Amino acid sequence: MKRLRVVKIGGNIIDSPPELREFLHHFAATDEPKILVHGGGKLATRLAEQLGIPQTLIDGRRVTDRQTLDIAVMVYAGLVNKNIVAMLQAARCNALGLCGADANIITTRKRMHSEVDYGFVGDVVEGGVNGKFLSQCIAQGITPVISAITHDGNGTLLNTNADTLASAIAIAMGEQFDTSLSYCFEKKGVLADPEDDNSLLPKMNRRDYQNLASKGIISKGMIPKLDNAFGALEKGVASVNICHARDIKVDSALAQPGTILV
Amino acid sequence: MKRLRVVKIGGNIIDSPPELREFLHHFAATDEPKILVHGGGKLATRLAEQLGIPQTLIDGRRVTDRQTLDIAVMVYAGLVNKNIVAMLQAARCNALGLCGADANIITTRKRMHSEVDYGFVGDVVEGGVNGKFLSQCIAQGITPVISAITHDGNGTLLNTNADTLASAIAIAMGEQFDTSLSYCFEKKGVLADPEDDNSLLPKMNRRDYQNLASKGIISKGMIPKLDNAFGALEKGVASVNICHARDIKVDSALAQPGTILV
Repeated sequence: MKRLRVVKIGGNIIDSPPELREFLHHFAATDEPKILVHGGGKLATRLAEQLGIPQTLIDGRRVTDRQTLDIAVMVYAGLVNKNIVAMLQAARCNALGLCGADANIITTRKRMHSEVDYGFVGDVVEGGVNGKFLSQCIAQGITPVISAITHDGNGTLLNTNADTLASAIAIAMGEQFDTSLSYCFEKKGVLADPEDDNSLLPKMNRRDYQNLASKGIISKGMIPKLDNAFGALEKGVASVNICHARDIKVDSALAQPGTILV
Repeated sequence: MKRLRVVKIGGNIIDSPPELREFLHHFAATDEPKILVHGGGKLATRLAEQLGIPQTLIDGRRVTDRQTLDIAVMVYAGLVNKNIVAMLQAARCNALGLCGADANIITTRKRMHSEVDYGFVGDVVEGGVNGKFLSQCIAQGITPVISAITHDGNGTLLNTNADTLASAIAIAMGEQFDTSLSYCFEKKGVLADPEDDNSLLPKMNRRDYQNLASKGIISKGMIPKLDNAFGALEKGVASVNICHARDIKVDSALAQPGTILV
């Protein structure tokens, strides 16, 4: 099977233009077939503030009303996606910006919750990733750059968690490719002590994870990321790691930087 | 040669959700290979107002500073483009939203003017439309939906006139396809009297156009549209017409609605 890298780039890197540029420079230079998945960082929150659109959080999760959805679509699928594509093109990486509605690549279902209406939030469903178009792009030497905006197939766009989306895409592509999934963000990987950058855990299995989570050592924000990462590993993705954005330059065939899930 | 329709949809239709829905319904139903090109309507102006970003006009042309470019990218390549794609997908038209940077389809050059700096405005250059990727999409049954945001190939996005872009795309595709170009907007076509909807000119040649323009009968806004339309006709596009958005439902093989350029 041919190799394919699926790389998720986190919001804090997107918020920092020099770090984003450095990351994209290294990403463009890797000559393996690849897919980039991105979230949006704090730009959307800032735009909502500027427009005076109140943001509602329920149990730490943002409610996506119609106006907040429009902002997410503008920022993630527009501003962030197209600037990444233009920068990759300048670095001679033939990028193609996509959201889930484009070529019908990712269909999700509006989240239904008995008590809370999260609004226009889409959860990935079984078979929701249409790998055919993505495979055709890769065969043509094109690098898909996917924003975490999806659609329900009935004309409605939905906001989707970018970590979950990266995992779902890697799983779907794993049927045709020897796929690696990298979550790139502003830390070296999973840290035994979030305050100490030198406490990197180079390897982690599901039991280590549950153990560290039960002790509260793995922090809140890392839990959904690790759930998605282990989910990918257990559903046929050949390798999964969590690393710093600048570690993307390490040749994944030789060494996997950051925390490798086993 | 296979047939291809290039359709430009105007801003006033985009500003009206029921008219846009009706247009997209008819557009999706035409079973010929097709490309949709769109502008952005007044949404971008409204967003700039809400954000308190002053808009500068020089001789009626908008200056695109950095903040105005970001708004154009958000609205045209994000909000408008992705909602059109989701609506077409719901109508079983396999749409793919693109800006010029995506798969490097349209490279433009920042407009240089000896006296005025128009900012981030890109003019289409000879050979700037890369028809290869668009042809591959069409061969796969995909309908490209193109927003008028382009790039300079060096990492900078540029705002581009959508009428000019539609003409440049039709010309480039005319090398491989028997291409028709339709400018769809909120009027029946070119009117001899802009106040009288029944004064449609069903046919017009370059001489008629110059004659009517010199008499001031063809209004200011129609002049760049007609220049682009005649330009396409003179550079190998098989047929060009200007018609109402709802006339897209007329089978172009049987009759061309609106004003046909000859």
